[in-house]
Amino acid sequence: MIFHSSTALPTEAEKYLSIGVESMSITIKDVAAKAGVSVATVSRVINSKGYISDQTNQKVKAAMIELNYKPNIAARTLQGKSTATIGIIVPSLENPLYSELFECIEKELYKRHFQTLLCTSNNQIQKEKNYLSLLEANRVEGIISSSHSKVLEEYKETALPIISFDRKISSKIPTVRGDNYAGGKMIALEIVKRHKKNVLILSGSKEDLSPGNDRIKGITQVLKEKRISFTTAALPFERAPIVKKELAKKAINMDTFDAIICTDDLTALIVCDLTKKLTTPPLVTGYDGSSFIRAYHPELVTIEQPIQEISELLVELLVQKVEHPLIELEAEYVLAVKLVGKSEFN
Amino acid sequence: MIFHSSTALPTEAEKYLSIGVESMSITIKDVAAKAGVSVATVSRVINSKGYISDQTNQKVKAAMIELNYKPNIAARTLQGKSTATIGIIVPSLENPLYSELFECIEKELYKRHFQTLLCTSNNQIQKEKNYLSLLEANRVEGIISSSHSKVLEEYKETALPIISFDRKISSKIPTVRGDNYAGGKMIALEIVKRHKKNVLILSGSKEDLSPGNDRIKGITQVLKEKRISFTTAALPFERAPIVKKELAKKAINMDTFDAIICTDDLTALIVCDLTKKLTTPPLVTGYDGSSFIRAYHPELVTIEQPIQEISELLVELLVQKVEHPLIELEAEYVLAVKLVGKSEFN
Repeated sequence: MIFHSSTALPTEAEKYLSIGVESMSITIKDVAAKAGVSVATVSRVINSKGYISDQTNQKVKAAMIELNYKPNIAARTLQGKSTATIGIIVPSLENPLYSELFECIEKELYKRHFQTLLCTSNNQIQKEKNYLSLLEANRVEGIISSSHSKVLEEYKETALPIISFDRKISSKIPTVRGDNYAGGKMIALEIVKRHKKNVLILSGSKEDLSPGNDRIKGITQVLKEKRISFTTAALPFERAPIVKKELAKKAINMDTFDAIICTDDLTALIVCDLTKKLTTPPLVTGYDGSSFIRAYHPELVTIEQPIQEISELLVELLVQKVEHPLIELEAEYVLAVKLVGKSEFN
Repeated sequence: MIFHSSTALPTEAEKYLSIGVESMSITIKDVAAKAGVSVATVSRVINSKGYISDQTNQKVKAAMIELNYKPNIAARTLQGKSTATIGIIVPSLENPLYSELFECIEKELYKRHFQTLLCTSNNQIQKEKNYLSLLEANRVEGIISSSHSKVLEEYKETALPIISFDRKISSKIPTVRGDNYAGGKMIALEIVKRHKKNVLILSGSKEDLSPGNDRIKGITQVLKEKRISFTTAALPFERAPIVKKELAKKAINMDTFDAIICTDDLTALIVCDLTKKLTTPPLVTGYDGSSFIRAYHPELVTIEQPIQEISELLVELLVQKVEHPLIELEAEYVLAVKLVGKSEFN
């Protein structure tokens, strides 16, 4: 699909238009003249397409920086070259973390006059691949992906600017995430503070339990240091809640645990429901701390990811990459998290 | 924005293409010839635009029916005249009812090779109006709206096919909804069955408490018949949960209630949290029964709206209206609801 377009938000058209016009003073022609190359070559550099020698690449880059050239989105929209559309890929909206992340991102993009095209992959690899093709065919300006499935190769091949939430896709695609290692440690320190002795760690998938997973690394490092015994088990997060409940029941009954650490809040809700009628229910902890969970389950001890800040940064970085394709971004942006939920001691 | 387009889902392009070609045998020209009018007139009839006399309207309609003419979406997409895109307007994804409704609708549309453009109005009238303009500018094929705010005039003015969820927009826009009156009665009968004597009815807005609201009508009719005393109060649903919590606290403390009927599940969760530590907590009931609530709050007594069936019907009706603009649909499609949640008696 091809969009050509004038108005992303008709009622704000004037404001929009003025932004576009303002930054149109330096054009791709000026850059080409300055660098002593053709307009087509500059275009290839901007869009990272076709062969460009290192020397030419550097010359064009230097000219763009010197002239402060910005391929402005609004201007390109007015010229019919931009779609002012950003694709958002999330695994599912069932988890309030993702519906909230989408809402925050959408609000940020709306403020900046972008429309959003939401793609829910439902953890189906083929669906995610189809949507990625669809986004390219729709000529979106860029993608924010918070996917969980393994469509890594396709992401690497696309020429579109991408920013990833939480998951590292490749060294070239910047990731924005909460500090999972610190979050894991905070949870484990809470376990220590409450004098728990026998811990079950329940994660969403086997992959999540790998030592490469920072949450697990933070949790287990503290538990080992403090010589607290622990057992791990995985509940595949893509399974229906009723299946997860049965699997959780089995895991819980493996031993008499006085604390159950869950690597996401939804698993924690299932475990709370399963254990609340025991004479001495274990401490159950979650992870993510979306507004929904904070509002409707204020007592749950969990790690709050700063979803608002994460969304703002995802949008800010993506817009930078769209407007300045040559910009060098960090590989990772890690934001602080915090422990929330009612303490036993107050 | 204008889309022209070839592929909605590249991987299924062949299947898609064959559907398109198959139904291209009868064209708008054939209809015009049969009816003895111009192609422009047939187009005006199809798109319900401009003045058409009743007589002409009937002639064209008869010709279309006789020739079995279908302005097929896939064919129009191939010709660059269709966008294969449907706009979905929801107030917010915070309520699991709406995130689930969106996911179900998206899955249905994906199966039928439509892409979706999600618009979250966040209960802001201006945002909803902007999005409605945006959808028109994007040339979406049609709209499914589950909006709550008062943008009625704008909806009436658009020429796009619209199907509404739950809320009646106008007599010309079909509504698909659960049977709110029956649901209200079921809740009240459960109150009767459990011998409750003093009931608080908490609704999302003052408007919801109007006698025109079918849920309230069903509830109060039964309570009056059974001579059970009740009090009503409204918690504006667009307020933050923390504000709603304070307002709920005041309402609950007005009297000693042994049952609190909430007209949505999220309000019920707040009330459950506020009352669970009382020595004799009141019965708290909700409404909507999304999968999320059923999975994570299985004990909540609530009315389950058939979201899957509602979504299928919304999509089916909208696609019918897109493919056969002259089709006469019912003003309302009302689906059965059911009482769910753990009973005191089992």
